[in-house]
This record gives sequence, C-alpha cells and structure tokens, in this order.
Amino acid sequence: MNENIMYLIPVLGLVGLLVMAFKSAWVTRQPEGEENMKELAGHIAKGAMAFLKAEWKVLSYFAVIAAVLLAWSGTMVETSSWVIAISFLLGAIFSATAGYFGMNIATKANVRTTNAARTSLTQALKVSFTGGTVMGLGVAGLAVLGLGSLFIVFYHMYVVSTGGSVHGIEMEKAIEVLAGFSLGAESIALFARVGGGIYTKAADVGADLVGKVEAGIPEDDVRNPATIADNVGDNVGDVAGMGADLFGSYVATILATMVLGREIHATDAFGGLSAVLLPMLIAGLGIIFSIIGCAMVKIKNDQGNVQSALNRGNWASIILTVVVSYFVVCWMLPETLELRGHVFTNMGVFNAILIGSIVGALMSMITEHYTAMGKRPVLSIVRQSETGHATNIIGGLSVGMESTVFPILVLASGIFLSHYFAGLYGVAIAASGMMATTAMQLAIDAFGPIADNAGGIAEMSGLPEEVRGRTDILDAVGNTTAATGKGFAIASAALTALALFAAFVGIAGIDSIDIYKADVLAGLFVGAMIPFIFSALAIAAVGRAAMSMVKEVRRQFREIPGIMEYKAKPEYEKCVEISTQASIREMIAPGAIALIAPVLVGFTFGPEVLGGMLAGITVSGVLLGMFQNNAGGAWDNAKKSFEKGVEISGQVHYKGSEPHKASVTGDTVGDPFKDTSGPSMNILIKLTSIVSLIIAPHIAVGEGAHHEDVLLQEPVIEKQITIADHVDNDHPVASLMIN
Amino acid sequence: MNENIMYLIPVLGLVGLLVMAFKSAWVTRQPEGEENMKELAGHIAKGAMAFLKAEWKVLSYFAVIAAVLLAWSGTMVETSSWVIAISFLLGAIFSATAGYFGMNIATKANVRTTNAARTSLTQALKVSFTGGTVMGLGVAGLAVLGLGSLFIVFYHMYVVSTGGSVHGIEMEKAIEVLAGFSLGAESIALFARVGGGIYTKAADVGADLVGKVEAGIPEDDVRNPATIADNVGDNVGDVAGMGADLFGSYVATILATMVLGREIHATDAFGGLSAVLLPMLIAGLGIIFSIIGCAMVKIKNDQGNVQSALNRGNWASIILTVVVSYFVVCWMLPETLELRGHVFTNMGVFNAILIGSIVGALMSMITEHYTAMGKRPVLSIVRQSETGHATNIIGGLSVGMESTVFPILVLASGIFLSHYFAGLYGVAIAASGMMATTAMQLAIDAFGPIADNAGGIAEMSGLPEEVRGRTDILDAVGNTTAATGKGFAIASAALTALALFAAFVGIAGIDSIDIYKADVLAGLFVGAMIPFIFSALAIAAVGRAAMSMVKEVRRQFREIPGIMEYKAKPEYEKCVEISTQASIREMIAPGAIALIAPVLVGFTFGPEVLGGMLAGITVSGVLLGMFQNNAGGAWDNAKKSFEKGVEISGQVHYKGSEPHKASVTGDTVGDPFKDTSGPSMNILIKLTSIVSLIIAPHIAVGEGAHHEDVLLQEPVIEKQITIADHVDNDHPVASLMIN
Repeated sequence: MNENIMYLIPVLGLVGLLVMAFKSAWVTRQPEGEENMKELAGHIAKGAMAFLKAEWKVLSYFAVIAAVLLAWSGTMVETSSWVIAISFLLGAIFSATAGYFGMNIATKANVRTTNAARTSLTQALKVSFTGGTVMGLGVAGLAVLGLGSLFIVFYHMYVVSTGGSVHGIEMEKAIEVLAGFSLGAESIALFARVGGGIYTKAADVGADLVGKVEAGIPEDDVRNPATIADNVGDNVGDVAGMGADLFGSYVATILATMVLGREIHATDAFGGLSAVLLPMLIAGLGIIFSIIGCAMVKIKNDQGNVQSALNRGNWASIILTVVVSYFVVCWMLPETLELRGHVFTNMGVFNAILIGSIVGALMSMITEHYTAMGKRPVLSIVRQSETGHATNIIGGLSVGMESTVFPILVLASGIFLSHYFAGLYGVAIAASGMMATTAMQLAIDAFGPIADNAGGIAEMSGLPEEVRGRTDILDAVGNTTAATGKGFAIASAALTALALFAAFVGIAGIDSIDIYKADVLAGLFVGAMIPFIFSALAIAAVGRAAMSMVKEVRRQFREIPGIMEYKAKPEYEKCVEISTQASIREMIAPGAIALIAPVLVGFTFGPEVLGGMLAGITVSGVLLGMFQNNAGGAWDNAKKSFEKGVEISGQVHYKGSEPHKASVTGDTVGDPFKDTSGPSMNILIKLTSIVSLIIAPHIAVGEGAHHEDVLLQEPVIEKQITIADHVDNDHPVASLMIN
Repeated sequence: MNENIMYLIPVLGLVGLLVMAFKSAWVTRQPEGEENMKELAGHIAKGAMAFLKAEWKVLSYFAVIAAVLLAWSGTMVETSSWVIAISFLLGAIFSATAGYFGMNIATKANVRTTNAARTSLTQALKVSFTGGTVMGLGVAGLAVLGLGSLFIVFYHMYVVSTGGSVHGIEMEKAIEVLAGFSLGAESIALFARVGGGIYTKAADVGADLVGKVEAGIPEDDVRNPATIADNVGDNVGDVAGMGADLFGSYVATILATMVLGREIHATDAFGGLSAVLLPMLIAGLGIIFSIIGCAMVKIKNDQGNVQSALNRGNWASIILTVVVSYFVVCWMLPETLELRGHVFTNMGVFNAILIGSIVGALMSMITEHYTAMGKRPVLSIVRQSETGHATNIIGGLSVGMESTVFPILVLASGIFLSHYFAGLYGVAIAASGMMATTAMQLAIDAFGPIADNAGGIAEMSGLPEEVRGRTDILDAVGNTTAATGKGFAIASAALTALALFAAFVGIAGIDSIDIYKADVLAGLFVGAMIPFIFSALAIAAVGRAAMSMVKEVRRQFREIPGIMEYKAKPEYEKCVEISTQASIREMIAPGAIALIAPVLVGFTFGPEVLGGMLAGITVSGVLLGMFQNNAGGAWDNAKKSFEKGVEISGQVHYKGSEPHKASVTGDTVGDPFKDTSGPSMNILIKLTSIVSLIIAPHIAVGEGAHHEDVLLQEPVIEKQITIADHVDNDHPVASLMIN
C-alpha cells in the first residue's frame, strides 16, 4: 500500500537528526583556543543553562497544569482527554528540546568561531554556519520526527484499530489530538520567545547605558558586570527563543495543512491520505534539500562574499524543494480534488506551493530593502539624525509604518492566488511550501548570533583587531539575515493563521465569520487590540528589567574596588540572575493574555465572535510585527552606517558625533521592537488560533455542534470493535457515522 | 401632519447660527489692546487667511473634478448624477465655510483674550471660550441647516413630487443623493485636517529646533522668523482643521443613521419618517442644549477652577440632551420597530442613545487618565526620562499602545449593547447621541488653541509675566480638552463607520462580509495597512517640511543682520509661505489614497472584498489613532511636568536638566503623532466608508444589483407621473416597485 509512505516521514526527520549529530560532533572537535577564552565561554554557557533551567521550571508547572486542564475539560465533553494531554506534553518537551539543542551548540560554536577567526574568515564561517546548521536540522528533524510518529500512532489508534474511514470522524479525531502537539509546541515557543526577548534586551540596554554611556568603556568589555548577561542574551533570545519559535511555526503550519487535507475526500493510491501526508512529506524532503543547501555555503578565501554564499545555499534548497514538490504532487494527488465545495486540480496545489515560495522570497527581499545599509529607507533615517534624537525617531517610525505596504500587498496577493488555485488547502500548502526549507532558513538565522557572540569573546579576551574584524563581517551579514528571517516568519505565520482559521471554522460548525454582525465586529476590534497590549507589556518589561540592570551595574562599579583597573572581577552571575528573574517574571502576563483571551471570548460569545477576534489578532499582529521588526532593523543599521562615516549635507559624520548619538537613541528604541515584541507577534497569532482550534469542539454550534459532540465521544476502542463485529460487513463503520 | 416637524430642523440650525453671530459680534467688540499686539495679531490673521486661500484654490480644483466625475459616473448607470454632484459641492462649501467661521473668530479672539488677560482670568476665559462657542455653533449650525434643508428639498423632489413611498426606492434615492453632501464635507475635512496638521507641526518643530535649541531664544520670541508661522499653525491646524473635521464627522454620523432609519418600515404619526428625522432632530436640539451648556461655563473670580467650569457646562448639555431624547423618542417612534429582521422597541432606541453618551464620556475619561499630568502613565514616562532619550521614547510608545485597551473594550461593549438594544439602527443612533452636543464639545476644544495663541501674543508683545501666567492656565486646560476631544472623536468615528458599513452592505446588495473567504480576508489585510501608510506619509511630510523651515530660519539669522538685537524684523511671511506650500503639496498623497483605494478595490474585487477592506481600515485606524493621540498627549504632558520640577529617584529635576531634554525629544516625536496623523485617522475611516457608500450602487451584486439598477434610474419626474396616472389607483407606485 502506498500509504506506507507515512513511515518514511519520521525516517526523514531521523536523517536530519543524524546529520545534526554528525555536524555537532564536528563543531565540538574544533579547538576552543586559549584558557581565558574557554573561561569566558564557560561563563556564557553556564548563564545560558541557568536561564533555561529557571525557565523550564516555571514552564513545567505551566505545562502540567495546562495538560490537566486539557484532560479535565476533555472529560466534560467525553473526549479522549488523556491522549490530547499527552500529545500536548510531548509538543512542549520537543519544543524545549529544540531550543536546548540550539543553545547547546551555539554556546560551543561561539568560542570555536572566535578561535577559527584567528586563522581565517573561511574557517570562521565554516564553524559558525555549521553551528547554525545543527540548530536548523535539530528543529526541523524534531518537528518532522514528532509529528510523523505521532500521526502514525494516532492513525492506528483511532482509525485503523476501529476500522474507521480516513474521511470519517475517527480521522478527524486523530488529527484533533495531534493538534495538542502543536499547542504544546507553540505555548513553549511563546514563553521562550518573550522571555528570551526580554532577557537579551534588558541585558543589552542595561550594559550599554551604564558601560558605554556612563563608564565610557567599549561594548563587550570584560570589566562590565553585565557583559556576560549580554552575551548570554544572544543565546537565550536569538538562538533558543528563535529555535522554539520556528519549531512552533513549522509544526503549526504542517498541522493546519493536515487538518484541511483531511477534509479532502480524495480517491488516490494512498488510502485517501494523500492530502494529509503531502505537507509532512514535503517538510521531510525539505530537510534533505536543506542539508544539500547548507553544504553549498562556503567561501573560497577571505575575500569571498559571505552573503552570496548564504544566498546560493538558500536558493538551491528552495528551488530543489519546489522542483521535487512538483513530482511529489503529481505522484500523490489525484487530478481533481474538492474541499468544502471548492474543486481544484493537483496542478493547482503545485501552483500554490510555488506561490508560497515566491511570497517567502519576496518578503525577504522587501524586508532587506527596508533594513539594509545604503538603501533609501535607512539613509533617510541617517539624514534625519542630523537634526537630533527626535527627528531620528520620527524617521524610524515613519520607515517602519511605510515598510508594511508592499509586504501586505504581496501577502494579500499570495492569499488570493493560492486560494484561487487550490482553495483553503492552497493557502495552507503555500505556507507549508514556504516553511519546507525551515532547516536552511534557521541555519542562516542562527549563525548570526553565534558570530555576534564570537565577536564578544574576541573583544573580552583582548584578541588582535583582525580577529574581531572577521567576526564583524559575519555579524553584519547576520544582522541582515535576522531581519529577512523575521519577514519570512511573519508571512508564513499569516498564511498558517489563515489555514488554522479555516480549520477552526470547520470544527466549530459555523459557515461564516460575518463582520457585518455587530458582535463579530466587536470581536474584531478586541482582537486587533491584543497585539497592542501584548507589545506594550513586552516593551515595558524590557524597560523595567533594564532599569534593574542599570542599578546593579552601578552598584558593582561603586562597591567593588578595582574593577576598572582589571584588579577585581565583576560579579557577572548577579547580572545574569537579574535578567533571568526579570524575564521569567515578565513573560507571564503577555503569555497569559494569548492563552486566556480566546478561551474567554469563545466560551462567552461563541465561535463566530471568536473567529472575528482571531482575524483581528492576525491582521493587527502581522502589521505591528512588520512595523516593529523593520523599524528596529532600520534604526540598527542607521546607527551602524556611522561606523564608517556618512556624509550628510556635505559634512562627514563618524562615531561619537551628534548625529551618531541620535542614531544610538533610535537603535536602543528599536531593540525591544525588533527582538522582543516584534518577533513575538507571529507566535501570538498562531497560538491564539491553535487554542481556538482546540476549544472549537467545546464551543461548536448548530448542526455542526451535534456532529462534533458525537465525533468527540471517546472511541473506547474495544467497545467499537464489538459493535463493528455485529454490523453489516458491507458497512462496517456505518453505525459510528451518526451525523 | 406631524412630519412637518422636518421644517423645525433647519430652523434649529439657524438658531445656532444666529446665536453664533451674536456671540461673534460680542467678541469683535472687545478691545484689542496696544498697537504692537494688533500688529502681531494682524500678521497671524493674514498668514492664516493666506493658507486658507491657497488651500481653497487647490481644493476647488479637486471639488470640481470630483463633482464632474460623480456626475459622469452617475450617467453611466443612469442616476440623477447632477443632483449628487451639486449635493457634493454644497457639502464641500459648507465644510470650508465652517472652517472659515472658526478661523475668523479665532484670529480675532486670540489678541482680545491676551488683552482681557491683562485684567483678569475670568475675563480671559470669557473671551476665549466665547470664541470657542462661535466655532462650535458655526459648525453644528451649518451642519444641521445644510442637512435639514437638503433633506427637505430632496424629499420633495424624489418622494413627494413622484407620489412615491417613504419606504420605497424614491426615498432611498433621496438619501443616497444626500450622501453626496457628506462626501463633500468629509473630503474637505480630510484635506483640511492633514494639510492643517502638517502646517502647524512643520512650523512648530522648525521654530523650536532652530529658535529654542540652536539660537537659545524662548518660545514665541518675536525674533524667531518662524514664530508667526507657528501661531498661524494653531489656527489652521487646531481650529480650521478641527472645525472641518468635526463638521464632517457630525454630518456623516447623522447621515448614516438616516440611511438605516429609512429601512425601518415604521407605522408612526410622522408619515413613516420618524426614524429618519430622529437623528436630525436630536442634533438640532443638541445645539440648543449646547447653547445652555456654554452659558454655564464661567468662573466667579481668578481662583475659580477652569476645568470644573468646562465640565459643568459639558455635563449639563449631555444630560439635557439625553433626558429630552427620552421624550422625543417616546413621542416620535412607534413601540416596535424592525430593521433587516431585527425587531426592537422605542425604549431600545433610547437605551442606545444613552449608551452612546456613556461611551463618549468614558472615552474622554480614559483618555484623560492616559494623558493627564500626575497620573501613572505620564509619571512613568517622566521617570523613564531619567535614563535618557531612548527610554523616554520607549516609555511613551508603551503608554500609547497600552492606552488602547480600555477604550477598545468600552467601544466593543458599546457596539455590542447598542446593537443588542436596537440593532444596527441602535449603533448608528448611539453615535448620533454621542455627537449631538458637538457644538459644546467643539467650544471646549477650540478655546484651547485660542488661549495658546493669546499666550504667544503676550510673549511676543513683551507683556508682564502675570498675563502669560493667566493664558498658561487656560492653555494647560486646553491641552487636556484637546486630548479628550480626540478620544471622543475616534469613538464616534468608529460607531459611525460601523453604521455606514451597515448602510453600504444594504445598498451593495450583499448579505454578509465573510472574512472566512480568502479574498475578503485579503481585503481586510490591505485595509488594515492603509492607516499605516497614511500615517507614514503624514509623519514623513512633517519631517520634510520642518527641515525646509529649519533651513529658512537659519538663512534669515545668517543673512539679515540685526535680528537678534531687535534692530531688523525677520521675514515672517517667508516662513508662512514655506509651511503653506509644504502642507498643500504634502496633503495630496494621503488624501488620494483615502479616496482612490475604495474605488479601486470596489470595482476590481466587488463589494464584499471592499467591505473587508473597510473593516480593516476602521479597526486599524481606530487603534493607530488612539495609539498616536495618546502617546503624543502623554509625551507632551511628561515634558510639561518638568516645568514645575519633578522628583525622580530622590532628585528634583527642572527645565533644562538632562531628563527634561529627553522629555523634549518625546514631545517632538509626539507632535506629528497627536496633531497630524493621529487625528486624521477618524476622517480616514469615515471618508473611505462614505466613498464606498456612494459607489455601492455601481458595484452592487446579485439580486440586490438588479434591485439597485432599477432603483437608480433617473426619476425623470414628469414621465413617472405620467406612468402613475395610467396605473391602478390603488397601487399608484406599483409600476416602479420592481424588485
């Protein structure tokens, strides 16, 4: 039977993890360099692990309570509650593990990259990018392995063992339980992203304000008590946070496509499972093509262009994925398919995948335009720095707002066209196609913070200027890839949210989400407000945590004599502790809003109002996310433009000039924008959608509700088999198909 | 016949205009003071008039072209196009006149307030508030007179003279043509608000950057070439712009209620017109209660509390309006009414009016909390100024985002409850109830800029400290009323937009706006992006215009010897010219987006996608408007907090301290937020809704389209009478009632 292809999926995930282990071992074998480098790297690794432990402790309470609630609420409507609770816990554990893999390798690769940079840029790129590859393959491998295996388990548990139909309620049940895995993953992602984002920016802003501004010592100076916390931050925010984030996105995207794929009643050679298996298979193949793409990222000598090397690998993996998707689609899908009355062809599905890839590429290109040095938007901020702090800020805010125009037009066209070609399944598979090369994207993203850390260690260890020069080249490229990665993440989140939204509508038993109804419109307003309060909380948290950090650094400078003369060591761990505690305390409120708001609105006002709220969160979250990410990226590079000197109105300004000081203000404002609240937006919109999907059967209305209540009855496998034994053999499952 | 009450409506408008003329004459009779005061006031009045003339010149081209397009497009579907074109032109002329009335009195009241402040605060309040009252009554009087008279004309032209039914297509036609008046008013409002907003902030920022920062001379110093432009700005932005804005809002709100009221098939003692006449009558009565409220605004002596006096008058007019509305509703409306299948009672309608008033009051109170000195939000910004420019900005952005939460919850509850009590008509009448006391609201709003200008003239004329002290008390109160007025405006705009939205759905012949459909959701995304690009353009325009101003002021300081020693007069008119030209050039692009986007989307993708776009514009516009207005207001008052000295971490900081400098940065960033792009949001959302309503018959679909095409045929009055003569006398209009 062709559907046995499903066993290939976890195997592809395992292949990813094996290659990861191989690459990880290679990185670990690289030399760490001098003793003081090892010591500093040890501090960073210790601080990062301390944060993960503290975070996991809080999150494990949360996960257990949430699992119990899921199980209990399931009991209320007689669902097989314990299975979804376990699925949820596995999602949480896999997500945490993905973050751990990334951070573990990043805290090893950083010092080894520094050491490699002592000899050549070629070697430094190799070490840092291999570190990124480990992270990317870990995330993608775990996601495909987890989803693929659980699908096989639930498919057998609910469908095969009951003799149920793949188009019936048993299959719906299996996928619904699988959604618990995504819920677990996305919940951890939210906390990891917000917590990590607060950590890194509190340390960064705090270290800069006292160190650079008050004490007048350079960035990453070993005398600054907050410098270790700052470097830890790169790992917990930009690596572990981002890893959990993309793990969650990746799983949610594939799951949303599976939910809609299940509704397609295809007659195919895969036991009717083709549309369900397709997104998982493409994701699995994407891992292989990402491995090939990663292997192509190298420069011949120190004059090589790093950005081109990354682009070459990225395009290779994308093009390979699209081409092979064509053959997979032709092979798996029947010529015509139908979903909720919309008829489309297998070529339509391929077109949707192609559109997804194009949307992803365009998003990255537009984001690069708005955040790269030397382009009009960043130059306009540079020019406006001449007249002071205020005009710099006005310039950045204006660039950030303007930067939403083309991405939104591309996104809207993507939604329109992918739906035109293959209905709602098209929208979902477009997102899946875009996310298929997540391993590659993440490798490109994660190498940036590794290089950043490597530069920090070079500075702290007092290595020669040329070493820092090499890591700076990598860091600069990393800044651009970080911005484009965020553009990509928000686009895929929007498409995924729409797919989840469609899945929610189906399960909640409603036919429409009609904003012409006053209560639905009220829901839309409340939903659109949530990204604003979420951002406000995240930004304010960074402000508060940075203030505590400032006070502690001032205290150490005052109370520990000899720090400035390198005679006494600062108490690094005190600053690490402050960032850790603050971020864990402050991540609770925004996280709670994301989890509780849909439940509250869904149960009080019903599914259609909740649908309105989800649309509001998605639209406003996408816009605020783009605005904050791009404004932050543009401010950052406007500041960096002064490092080589820029000419404004005929005068050249350098670091330390008044316009440069104004640009530092913009960069500091942009920090929480682009690294805390901005990137949280894509998790917020997906998490609220998944929560809604999970509660959908409980709040379902009308005929649909009846359908769902039946559907959600505990299968009680033995009993059903007994029934099946007694019914007409030609219709073995008819007795279960009450609708 | 009771429907003759319709003749009372324009009379109430006339009463408002007569009282206005009387109060205006009183202001003009007050003494202007010394010769130099007269001369400065003359410069300001001349500059303001120069701007109005330049603006009107551009807008008259626009109005004529738009009217021709309206007439031409009307011809295409055989509507009575010339009537709607005339209606549009009248709306534009009335709106421009309302702005002119306000500015004319403001440029007279300013210097007379200065002169009055030489004797007492009591008298200064009396002169400035009477100036505000003239503005408020002018706007409300013109609106009620214009709408009321045109309704009578169109009612006779389309309904009475054809023997048509008030529930039939003739009446729909009459109201549709009346919508042209609102379109004209709102178009002018958008350009006036954006143009005025760019003018005032370019002059303000430009004057401050060179005068205060570079040359070290105080604000409003007569040596600063931009100081006259700055004072002109208060009049063209905060007075004329706001007047046109509220004129447009007021008309749109009443019109939206009439559109929905027409669909109510009531059997009443008003020839079936009760639900159509009700909003106009309440607006007319609101003028009378505003006159009473205005009369209550006075203080006994110079120790009197100005804010309490304003509050007393405001509450009196609101409570009187609500109480009298109860009796009017009981008298006019039948006990049960029905709109699109939703049955409700006349008491339900009254409850909706009550809810509208409560929502308006709560919005003002919440806005005050977030922007007033001494409250938590502003204090948090003050504290964050201690660590520099960046943390001040982060604090303000966070406060602005947070400030959306409660207003949105209040607004959503208002939508939900008013709809619960009286369906869509309830939502519209709630907005009408809220807007009924517009004359009073505007009097309170407009006295602020008059007092601000009075203070400027006092400073420039070198009057004693105590005079400026008195105008400063009025100016401080004016800052708070400006912020609360904006909260009120955005709430009413949201409710009005929803009512217009409902009216649009009816005329476009669609049953729902289903965001579950991919194309509608794409429309929602594009719509939500529009307020972002609109804000980006407006903010960037202020930045550019301020830069030109800075260069001109620097040039004058350099090239005109003796300015600093008071030996030579600066060329004020050059700066006035720069602000005028820049604002008129820069208002085109954002205005064009607002007008063209709905037309483009409506004709390309049809009414449902356009509906999605409108919802996106409304939701995102309301949130961005609140965010920008409140952040700007909070930054402004955080800066003002330093004038009396504030204690942060045990140390008192005054004007000129580092934290104060940081707070000036926030204030400057907030300027275009709160006075240019923020307040434009409410016009943007209403204007796009009205444009959609006007094009609705042209893009109508399905059965509705057929209905509408017939409905929009030129009545050709004589011909119809001929037809009516030949048909069965029992069904005189049956031959026209093709549906």
